[in-house]
Amino acid sequence: MSAAMERIRAVYLLDVPEAVAQARANALAVEQSVEMPVEAIADRHVLADVVARVESVRARDGRFEVVLGIACPTTGPEASQLLNMLFGNCSLQPEVELVDVEFPDGYERSFPGPRFGIEGIREMTRAHGRALTCTALKPQGSSVAHLARLAETFARAGIDVIKDDHGLANQADQPFAERVPAVQRAIHEANRATGGCTVYAPTFSGSPRALEAQARIARECGVKMALAAPMLLGVPAFLEMQAELDIPVMAHPAFAGAARIAPPLLLGTLFRLFGADATIFPNHGGRFSYSRSTCMAIADAARRPWNEMKPTLPVPAGGMTVERVPEMLEGYGKDTMLLIGGGLLVAGERLLERAREFVAAVRR
Amino acid sequence: MSAAMERIRAVYLLDVPEAVAQARANALAVEQSVEMPVEAIADRHVLADVVARVESVRARDGRFEVVLGIACPTTGPEASQLLNMLFGNCSLQPEVELVDVEFPDGYERSFPGPRFGIEGIREMTRAHGRALTCTALKPQGSSVAHLARLAETFARAGIDVIKDDHGLANQADQPFAERVPAVQRAIHEANRATGGCTVYAPTFSGSPRALEAQARIARECGVKMALAAPMLLGVPAFLEMQAELDIPVMAHPAFAGAARIAPPLLLGTLFRLFGADATIFPNHGGRFSYSRSTCMAIADAARRPWNEMKPTLPVPAGGMTVERVPEMLEGYGKDTMLLIGGGLLVAGERLLERAREFVAAVRR
Repeated sequence: MSAAMERIRAVYLLDVPEAVAQARANALAVEQSVEMPVEAIADRHVLADVVARVESVRARDGRFEVVLGIACPTTGPEASQLLNMLFGNCSLQPEVELVDVEFPDGYERSFPGPRFGIEGIREMTRAHGRALTCTALKPQGSSVAHLARLAETFARAGIDVIKDDHGLANQADQPFAERVPAVQRAIHEANRATGGCTVYAPTFSGSPRALEAQARIARECGVKMALAAPMLLGVPAFLEMQAELDIPVMAHPAFAGAARIAPPLLLGTLFRLFGADATIFPNHGGRFSYSRSTCMAIADAARRPWNEMKPTLPVPAGGMTVERVPEMLEGYGKDTMLLIGGGLLVAGERLLERAREFVAAVRR
Repeated sequence: MSAAMERIRAVYLLDVPEAVAQARANALAVEQSVEMPVEAIADRHVLADVVARVESVRARDGRFEVVLGIACPTTGPEASQLLNMLFGNCSLQPEVELVDVEFPDGYERSFPGPRFGIEGIREMTRAHGRALTCTALKPQGSSVAHLARLAETFARAGIDVIKDDHGLANQADQPFAERVPAVQRAIHEANRATGGCTVYAPTFSGSPRALEAQARIARECGVKMALAAPMLLGVPAFLEMQAELDIPVMAHPAFAGAARIAPPLLLGTLFRLFGADATIFPNHGGRFSYSRSTCMAIADAARRPWNEMKPTLPVPAGGMTVERVPEMLEGYGKDTMLLIGGGLLVAGERLLERAREFVAAVRR
């Protein structure tokens, strides 16, 4: 890459006294690039093209906003090395928060981005011109037969995407190799009966080799979507899995609460760059404390125009109820998938009816 | 596994008002296991053997300490699923901190743990009865020839382990396939001249397939140790890499600053469980703000007796100097490797001499 190439602009908030703000900004630039005293560097190429630059320092809401210019070639470009340059060492400094990143035009072409995006998921589920519905198979520890029955009920109700609970991994109670074919078959049969096209997104988890084995099983039984937690798998494995699977992938935020990376950046921009076709996040007013504006910013980062990069489908979740559907639709618009899991399962015997109410409320 | 098997005891600190502490503890148990309303669960096996239990709630330093009993089978047992059950969803709840985990005896046998541990690293470097020395090749952006020269100088000085800077990944300036054979050759030649046995630990980074390719290159040129950041690679890929490489692996803490997992737990206990033979952490009084007691607790977690599990070598680092060697040796004892990187490189023309002073100070 050309030395003159524009830099990645990474925005940090530093919780430090004013007297040391500039010095801490300079130290941050060193920490996030060469990680050694600059005065000991003789190589002009390193000084000019590798050391990160402090582009600005300004007071902001009681902290100091520091914009670093990070040289693109230092990031590989590869996903884990990008994270390393953005927040590798400074993740260990509690006074530093990474709040935003602006990539130079064209940088995003180093990554595949979402392969299917919102339109791909709409086509697969034939859900056009409206928001989508999603629910989850729970709880872990259930028999495979129970999970398959639940899936059949949800599919009969016309829910667009049925995902595994993110706690359904590959445990003895519900091994992937038994659960996934059984659930996919149940959904397939319900689809045949109703003429619907409900899609199943099982949880992919474990080591790279385990993911390969799961991909084989999923392909064999016709699975059309995948659920995975990038921060548990590791982002590089998450990317490799997509190439292997070639079906839409929904990102789960488990273990992503680094808390000092702003959620719109991590769950929106970065997960999109790393190829998530849909991104689940905790909606405001549920079991999690994200504010409404944080949630809207996540959805915006997932969907906003970004050159040729496909948009990612925002999936607000986390303690949602059918009663909140109208308000959520108003807030997020139709390029959204609403996820209600436990809020349907509490209906017990009335599960089919409750799931139908959810579907009707979204289609209304 | 038997339903009666002892549970994993996970200790959290909750920053919540006293009036809701018990309710939040109950909700946490649900969040970290079945993630759905317990009243909607009919399956007795799930209720008895899967739902996490609140074992205690008590006031502690202005917060509430909650001990959860997490059922072992829910964790797989597999590394990413263990992290998921310990801190998957609640990582998204800023009021929750994971401070400690106690595993039932025998649980650790589900993981390989360190394959070499402290003794294995001592044998490889012939460093017996004393602390070890370590330095880093920096900065990224340097030519391969420059890095090889640095390595040769350090090896001639008798440093035990020369690691890549964690920012040296696989970038165009210093591709793994060129850098690693060249640096290994330089060290090999210095060893032959001095009769020493300095070991090189290059940075392994990127996707599972990239790691495989790097393992092949490393094997071919006789690399005897590896450096990797588990939180950047993903813990499952970190584990799989160890099996592939079969040489000691040093864990780097980059991107591990989830901040709400106590560092002794993550960098000590968990990285050890996940197979790190050595673990780098930011020493107190350097560029990072960990306290002395946090650092001592990390070293303790890395080395304390744990059934058959080998101990992990603690590697305090991050802005250390030769002047601090006596104090660090006094604090950490000899089952430790001291890492000084930039603190040697500032010596410029006096690098060999400075590196020898470091070696002498540690051997003294």
